[in-house]
Amino acid sequence: MTPHLAILGPGLLGGSLAMACKSRGGGRVSVWARREEAVAEVRDRGCADVASTDVRKVVADADVVVFATPIGAMPSLAREIVEYVKPTALVTDVGSVKAPVVRELAPLFAGRAEFIGSHPMAGSEQTGLGAARADLFEGAVTIVTPEAGTPAARTARVRAFWEGVGCTVRQVGPEEHDLMVGWVSHLPHLLAATLINTVEASDPEAFEFCGPGFRDATRIASGPPSMWTEILGENRLAVHQALDGLIENLRAVSTLLASAPNEERDALMNQLLTEAKGRRDRLRLPNVLSDA
Amino acid sequence: MTPHLAILGPGLLGGSLAMACKSRGGGRVSVWARREEAVAEVRDRGCADVASTDVRKVVADADVVVFATPIGAMPSLAREIVEYVKPTALVTDVGSVKAPVVRELAPLFAGRAEFIGSHPMAGSEQTGLGAARADLFEGAVTIVTPEAGTPAARTARVRAFWEGVGCTVRQVGPEEHDLMVGWVSHLPHLLAATLINTVEASDPEAFEFCGPGFRDATRIASGPPSMWTEILGENRLAVHQALDGLIENLRAVSTLLASAPNEERDALMNQLLTEAKGRRDRLRLPNVLSDA
Repeated sequence: MTPHLAILGPGLLGGSLAMACKSRGGGRVSVWARREEAVAEVRDRGCADVASTDVRKVVADADVVVFATPIGAMPSLAREIVEYVKPTALVTDVGSVKAPVVRELAPLFAGRAEFIGSHPMAGSEQTGLGAARADLFEGAVTIVTPEAGTPAARTARVRAFWEGVGCTVRQVGPEEHDLMVGWVSHLPHLLAATLINTVEASDPEAFEFCGPGFRDATRIASGPPSMWTEILGENRLAVHQALDGLIENLRAVSTLLASAPNEERDALMNQLLTEAKGRRDRLRLPNVLSDA
Repeated sequence: MTPHLAILGPGLLGGSLAMACKSRGGGRVSVWARREEAVAEVRDRGCADVASTDVRKVVADADVVVFATPIGAMPSLAREIVEYVKPTALVTDVGSVKAPVVRELAPLFAGRAEFIGSHPMAGSEQTGLGAARADLFEGAVTIVTPEAGTPAARTARVRAFWEGVGCTVRQVGPEEHDLMVGWVSHLPHLLAATLINTVEASDPEAFEFCGPGFRDATRIASGPPSMWTEILGENRLAVHQALDGLIENLRAVSTLLASAPNEERDALMNQLLTEAKGRRDRLRLPNVLSDA
């Protein structure tokens, strides 16, 4: 485990990371928060050895530094600490979009510390330290995003760090990461939100008739709007392209529904649903072992 | 509880209903299945007093008859039994689309038995007697769909029947039912299936990067294709209209994503996500008590 871990931002992910390290018998954990009340909350919960609003003090002696703030807050925070981190420190982040983060942070830390991006796919629609759990990362997938020039030893180091808190680690470049999570995370979020808003505007009484299917299909729409506004803004090109591809296919489905019922129509619909079921059934999600 | 319940079709819903009645100390349960192997399976599981391929024998003495077959099989089965059910028998069904079922079955049973449509919103993406559970209906919503001329006593009777197996009952006309489940059940199913198919065709590697959000948002796509082809075909007008409304709103979201990032764009996106979150957070689903 890590000798000294510094976590910047005590939200759901930062707080859970602190708790995971303490509960797994890791080394020292220091947490930075912008507000004194957040520092007090970290202290009250006893999930860190040091909690402070002084970010330079928090990172000064750290072997691993993890940015767990909103993406937009990372560059200025990085500029604030860059002269104070140890040159041997591993520096990473937990942002859901990687290319913009890596583009900003990698040059700042070049030659000054070992930066590489991470995206732990853990969490839920809940937020804040109150929702943090020591086992949040157990079995979750973390994607690490080395660039072309990232030394293999640094990638191995960040992989070992996330494996140390129970994650399964995958590896892909920052741009490719953003395209892929655009499909399986950002687009589904927009879809769920737009579905709810469309029902609300069209037939709000229908909400009285929803069952477990609707509940699951829309759970992600309960996520924090400000965080998702930032994610969708940062990854807008990939999400826009994915959304347009989806709209095109939905239009084809609409045409199919509008055609008169006959055997060919039913055969096409059945094929569409069978392909989707086959793919969904083949999904094996390591972070949900009970998933059939 | 019901003195004698006849269930036509021992699938997930029919089987669970038989088990629920037996486990709650209900009266006699008879089950009809088309195939001898299905009859044998019902006997092996001991969830009925009588299991037979002879539908006339199964319904002859029943106080309540429940159609739990695919919708398409109901009219011919109804014609087969209509002269054999007791005139005092309550006859209902579990079909997910109500107007076409009521349109076919209500005239057949008029003056011969007490027909009224039902739609228990229970079940999952699993199917068949093997997935049946005695507690499937506990806390689930069942929608009963009286027509304008349905006697109030009959509606009360079917409500009491579903409440007897643990359901919360709601009541609405068949056409209105179909519009509303078009929004909260059929449209989300099509969306989940089309999302999966679009990702498969565009960037299948992205499936390697999906987390619990994608899993939940697409779970319903694992449902049985033949059943869903039938549902979507029967309710195609409502689903088509709902889908076109959704596509229109998705196009507006696409335009928003394509516009240059600025404060107004972020404010609109944040508003969209905040409205969706507010509505999703307000959903209280009686069949999932742990749902926050």
